[in-house]
Amino acid sequence: MSKKIYKPKPTSGFPEWLPEQRAVELKWLDIIRAKFESYGFCSIETSAVEKVETLLAKGGDADKEIYSLKRLHDIGQEETSKVALHYDLTVPLARYIAINGNNLTFPFKRYQIQKCWRGERPQEGRFREFCQCDIDVLDQESVSVEYDAELPKIIYEIIEQLEVGPVNIHINNRKVLEGFYQGLGIEDITSVISIVDKIDKLGIDMVGKMLSSELSLPKEVVSKCLELATIKTFDNSFLSKIRSLGVESETLNSGLEELSLVLERLSDIPEGVVIIDLSIARGFDYYTGTVYEGKLANYPDYPTIFAGGRYENLVGSFTNKRIPGVGISIGITRIISKLFKENAVKLGPKCPTTVLVAQLPGLESKASRFVAHKLRSRGYNVEVFHDNAKLNKQIKYADKKGIPYVWFPSINNDSHEVKNLKTGEQIRTSVMTWLPDESMI
Amino acid sequence: MSKKIYKPKPTSGFPEWLPEQRAVELKWLDIIRAKFESYGFCSIETSAVEKVETLLAKGGDADKEIYSLKRLHDIGQEETSKVALHYDLTVPLARYIAINGNNLTFPFKRYQIQKCWRGERPQEGRFREFCQCDIDVLDQESVSVEYDAELPKIIYEIIEQLEVGPVNIHINNRKVLEGFYQGLGIEDITSVISIVDKIDKLGIDMVGKMLSSELSLPKEVVSKCLELATIKTFDNSFLSKIRSLGVESETLNSGLEELSLVLERLSDIPEGVVIIDLSIARGFDYYTGTVYEGKLANYPDYPTIFAGGRYENLVGSFTNKRIPGVGISIGITRIISKLFKENAVKLGPKCPTTVLVAQLPGLESKASRFVAHKLRSRGYNVEVFHDNAKLNKQIKYADKKGIPYVWFPSINNDSHEVKNLKTGEQIRTSVMTWLPDESMI
Repeated sequence: MSKKIYKPKPTSGFPEWLPEQRAVELKWLDIIRAKFESYGFCSIETSAVEKVETLLAKGGDADKEIYSLKRLHDIGQEETSKVALHYDLTVPLARYIAINGNNLTFPFKRYQIQKCWRGERPQEGRFREFCQCDIDVLDQESVSVEYDAELPKIIYEIIEQLEVGPVNIHINNRKVLEGFYQGLGIEDITSVISIVDKIDKLGIDMVGKMLSSELSLPKEVVSKCLELATIKTFDNSFLSKIRSLGVESETLNSGLEELSLVLERLSDIPEGVVIIDLSIARGFDYYTGTVYEGKLANYPDYPTIFAGGRYENLVGSFTNKRIPGVGISIGITRIISKLFKENAVKLGPKCPTTVLVAQLPGLESKASRFVAHKLRSRGYNVEVFHDNAKLNKQIKYADKKGIPYVWFPSINNDSHEVKNLKTGEQIRTSVMTWLPDESMI
Repeated sequence: MSKKIYKPKPTSGFPEWLPEQRAVELKWLDIIRAKFESYGFCSIETSAVEKVETLLAKGGDADKEIYSLKRLHDIGQEETSKVALHYDLTVPLARYIAINGNNLTFPFKRYQIQKCWRGERPQEGRFREFCQCDIDVLDQESVSVEYDAELPKIIYEIIEQLEVGPVNIHINNRKVLEGFYQGLGIEDITSVISIVDKIDKLGIDMVGKMLSSELSLPKEVVSKCLELATIKTFDNSFLSKIRSLGVESETLNSGLEELSLVLERLSDIPEGVVIIDLSIARGFDYYTGTVYEGKLANYPDYPTIFAGGRYENLVGSFTNKRIPGVGISIGITRIISKLFKENAVKLGPKCPTTVLVAQLPGLESKASRFVAHKLRSRGYNVEVFHDNAKLNKQIKYADKKGIPYVWFPSINNDSHEVKNLKTGEQIRTSVMTWLPDESMI
């Protein structure tokens, strides 16, 4: 019978890592989880799918990026054809709270580390499948502004531990924008925000033209909008700069107060990281207060690596209760794929093994398994070589996998030997007393 | 503007957990990962989707359970309409190795903990989305039979640590079945295996009738098949029982040798757990040697909680190289959902917080944040209460979330106080010396 071979190829936009890359990702995810938990956030997971109605209930233009599901051999419209993969973790969180709210204690602080899917055309930093690490606080009626400051602090501590290089955290407040535009007498505030939000991509001149031509705003109003959008400060000088534009409104005052508090709370972060950036709006129409965007400072053209903000009505569309929240999402796939591409991260080991126990000629395999068992019970990661091949071959296997130690068992408790493959040093030892060099594991 | 409310409901077959349930799942996943790594297995993840061709290349009747993906607003057949969610982690592993084989070191020992999806009708123990924990060893040309024994040992150690109650590990070897049927002169061995595999569901009599009527096997052959299928032993007495049936073949001998070795290697496991069970075949046509099925002994009618076996040609359909393997997959969603339903597992805490730092009247919030920072740097999970509500309310919050300690900060380093909410005891302490009761965290 001739063998039929189907040669598979990687699927574009669905990244996969080799074990030594995955080891880095896993270490990162451990750091992120530990940090989230150290601030008291609990883990939840939501199903990969949502009802299409749930996803569409959030509006926006997300619908065209949604992957819907269909059983391969379904004929007609089954129930399952009405579910789709989630494209973020925020809408699923809102839906989860709408369903489980009565069993949760508020403020509800949760983290969620899961894959998301979008039917986008893949390009640098944009994937069809990607891992997001989300952290949100939701509360009944109102969420303390303290969380607006706590979240970027947590994210900064994580980013620092991940050693991804310098980052910038751009922070703004939608109330400042809305209040400012109100003060200018602008009626269609949403349109102004969505146009000004493109200032990074289109530049000041083009945005100015669009504000004039599309919204028919007077020249002096456009000018004020552009002046506001170009304010970027590391300290609270943004306050006097905005005040000097001579625009007043209650919403503006409230926004500036929140922005000042957030900046003050982040004063421990080294100067130059946090930028009060009045050009940041975040496209999503559900943000209502503080908004965040994080960038890798070394790659300014690379897309945002984390983002988020405060929202008042997200859960509101699913329930009668008022449950506002604030959250940030880290795009871990986006960060790690860039660092892999730039060779800017040290790869991990090909396997977690610290000791390979060899099988020696003339010694029962039981002896090797016994050593492995004892070392494992002492907390080490240990493999037994799978047959009694020549020692050369066994050592070569350890070397190729980056296993630092090869153990040569003995029937005499005190005459085991261990070879350090990095230094070549071989010592006599015993299973209960041996200690590896800390730098090797 | 009247608010339009869309009330979401859970989606059948896509289980979700409350935080206190998720805490158990997370603990389990940590145990599983640590055990896999302690035996030197590396982590990989594959994309949630595979090309439909890849999934179908494995044959079987899996196709009708496959969820394919479609962009919601796609018209016509785009590339993305030809991908589907994976229904297990074995086919994706084979495809991953076909693509990445040149960058891997063999024997390749990997674990993989991911969601899988099947378009099945949900019922007890059967979900549309479920988490599988897979462990496999693959090697070029041949895989050492030592791994056939190592894998169920690893799984048993995990199951023991998870405290899911007593389990049974049913083990058989497809070579024994095939060799026995060969020795009986049966030609259509695959059909016999697939009929005998149903003995648990249909009973001996029905299986006997099917072997006679559907395959026209002579009465004495059917009788031998049924005698073989009913052999179940805790020790190596299966050898004499099979021999006494008087059937001979080389394949049978080879299978019995492997089965004996596996049983011998598992002799550390308490008696009664491992069952050599000649009725087990595993439906999948890719198994060629050792096969495993795990059951919760307390719930004999509940489906298999882990399963696997040895396969020779799985990767072979994707590449010219011969890369056989052996693996086991634990159905973690299946186990945990049953234990939740039976109230047979202690739920975890609602949040990971050990200490809630209160905000005291007359004291700046900075003082509370400072305490939290110091305690976090000592490795504790700490929340600061988010406003200066009445102390009663702050303590009630900790109590509702199951946070064991409430901290009352002071501007004097040595006059902080901590209340143990379980005992009611309140002591004076300092941020650098305080130690929680080990049983409380």
